[in-house]
Amino acid sequence: MRIDYKQAAEFIKNCDNVLILAHSSPDGDTVGSSFALCRALRNLGKRVNVSCADEIPEKYDYITDWCAPQIFDVETVIACDVAGVHLLGENNAVRYGERVDLCIDHHISNTDYARRLLLGEHSASACEVIYTLLVTADIPVDRMTAQCIYTGMATDTGCFRFENVTSETHRIASVLYTYDIPFGAINRHLFDIKSKARLKTEQIVMSQPEFCCGGKCAIIAITADIIEKEGLDDGELEGIPALPMQIEGVEIGITIKEKERGVYKVSVRTASVDASAICANFGGGGHIRAAGCKFSGTYLEDVKQKMAAAAAEALEYDGQ
Amino acid sequence: MRIDYKQAAEFIKNCDNVLILAHSSPDGDTVGSSFALCRALRNLGKRVNVSCADEIPEKYDYITDWCAPQIFDVETVIACDVAGVHLLGENNAVRYGERVDLCIDHHISNTDYARRLLLGEHSASACEVIYTLLVTADIPVDRMTAQCIYTGMATDTGCFRFENVTSETHRIASVLYTYDIPFGAINRHLFDIKSKARLKTEQIVMSQPEFCCGGKCAIIAITADIIEKEGLDDGELEGIPALPMQIEGVEIGITIKEKERGVYKVSVRTASVDASAICANFGGGGHIRAAGCKFSGTYLEDVKQKMAAAAAEALEYDGQ
Repeated sequence: MRIDYKQAAEFIKNCDNVLILAHSSPDGDTVGSSFALCRALRNLGKRVNVSCADEIPEKYDYITDWCAPQIFDVETVIACDVAGVHLLGENNAVRYGERVDLCIDHHISNTDYARRLLLGEHSASACEVIYTLLVTADIPVDRMTAQCIYTGMATDTGCFRFENVTSETHRIASVLYTYDIPFGAINRHLFDIKSKARLKTEQIVMSQPEFCCGGKCAIIAITADIIEKEGLDDGELEGIPALPMQIEGVEIGITIKEKERGVYKVSVRTASVDASAICANFGGGGHIRAAGCKFSGTYLEDVKQKMAAAAAEALEYDGQ
Repeated sequence: MRIDYKQAAEFIKNCDNVLILAHSSPDGDTVGSSFALCRALRNLGKRVNVSCADEIPEKYDYITDWCAPQIFDVETVIACDVAGVHLLGENNAVRYGERVDLCIDHHISNTDYARRLLLGEHSASACEVIYTLLVTADIPVDRMTAQCIYTGMATDTGCFRFENVTSETHRIASVLYTYDIPFGAINRHLFDIKSKARLKTEQIVMSQPEFCCGGKCAIIAITADIIEKEGLDDGELEGIPALPMQIEGVEIGITIKEKERGVYKVSVRTASVDASAICANFGGGGHIRAAGCKFSGTYLEDVKQKMAAAAAEALEYDGQ
């Protein structure tokens, strides 16, 4: 059931013993929104924990390491930035999938699985939704909460680069910049500094992208071999899907990550066509310029072919 | 003579037959601020041209191609984003260096060479200063003017990444986002899309950076050979100085560009120490995290050694 900011504000003010769920393969926005909400509610004296099916990348330690787990029986379940039950990851989906009391999200592809859904469909990040929700609920935003919110806003917009940025995004950022937060160092940490393994991986995957649709679509693959050999974690792989879009003339960038043998996570980025629609062909979803889908029990070449065909359809490319 | 926004507003409202000077080796901020001011003043019926010693890179065509030159005798000279007379480039320095009526800038290293100086020393870009000036002067900002201003704000902050960003930067961006401007496409154009020559150049210069100060300083060189072989223009080289800062552990990134045989333009980026002070050793200047200097009549190895020594001094690195 869709609810508005006022209703969601009432809900979070009145809940307690809260478990906040982030999505699997956690990114800056699901981590930032989950820990921002956790922090703000704990500041009110509530008991709150955050759970994520996968390990949270080390790069986000600076917004999570304040948060010692608390012991309580879960009464309320809130999902942050989780567009569908399956994105909770297997354990959390089985255990809590049927009992999510509130989902706070910004994905147009949200399946409306929760009892209540606060959907900021024009918000660039779930963190933007969280910020507006906290302001609506008149819940104080302290320095660390602001830092969590900034992290999700920045990571989901490529540091204010992507098409999802709005006037409201910058307005909120302008307020967050009044806090004493080392923004320059955080941006360097999130967007600039790369481990040598990451730099090498970029060189490998970008040295020979595969092109289709007359150069309008570029496909890169990060195989399990590369990930293992370079010892990369999820945090180090974040942002790779933006790389094929750097190539002049490319309108659809497809990044295929082999999560384990035969299991592929595909990220689609687009300049003009609907990325979410491309991924919907394969049970995935997301946003108009950034979306994803999964394939299991198949081969890399098969995934490439299927994605290339979907890209050609989206571009109405007939091989001429 | 330093003047404030109100005085500068009076000045630009009352001037006419204006020549606006951008700095040589033009970047997004000098181009954006010059053409924003030109546009806003032409909209008032004044006669205004922009002049730059070097050719303006093609990538900025989208903010300059509306501007057909006008014919008039120059009465007023305004410099935008030009910290010193020598940065006007040889011809413009000789011709107009002594008669700059107003300089609009944000570099702390500005030499106060103009008759009047409006210096936004805490502004991330000259375009931020221009925006505040136009608002102060009550001069309308139309869509193209806003697009020029956004371009300089975005390029001088690495799209809101660098340490120079303030709450005010985002506040102005929030206002600019209310205009019907294709921000996503512009950001892609400015920050993401790279020609194949640029991508190859990045791979060449980043394949073997030289390290000193125990890995805290990285030096890369773009030789005249590479520039010529890949056919790169100034626009395609913008942003390269940010690359050595991507390497984990690097606190000073030095990029040496061989402009012509024996003439080197050095760009310094820093994470913690004062880049402007490092460059001041060699007659250069700029900002605390981004600065530059020049060397003539010497060899690349000599430039590297001098810069490495200055970096060691700044880091108080004694080789232990």
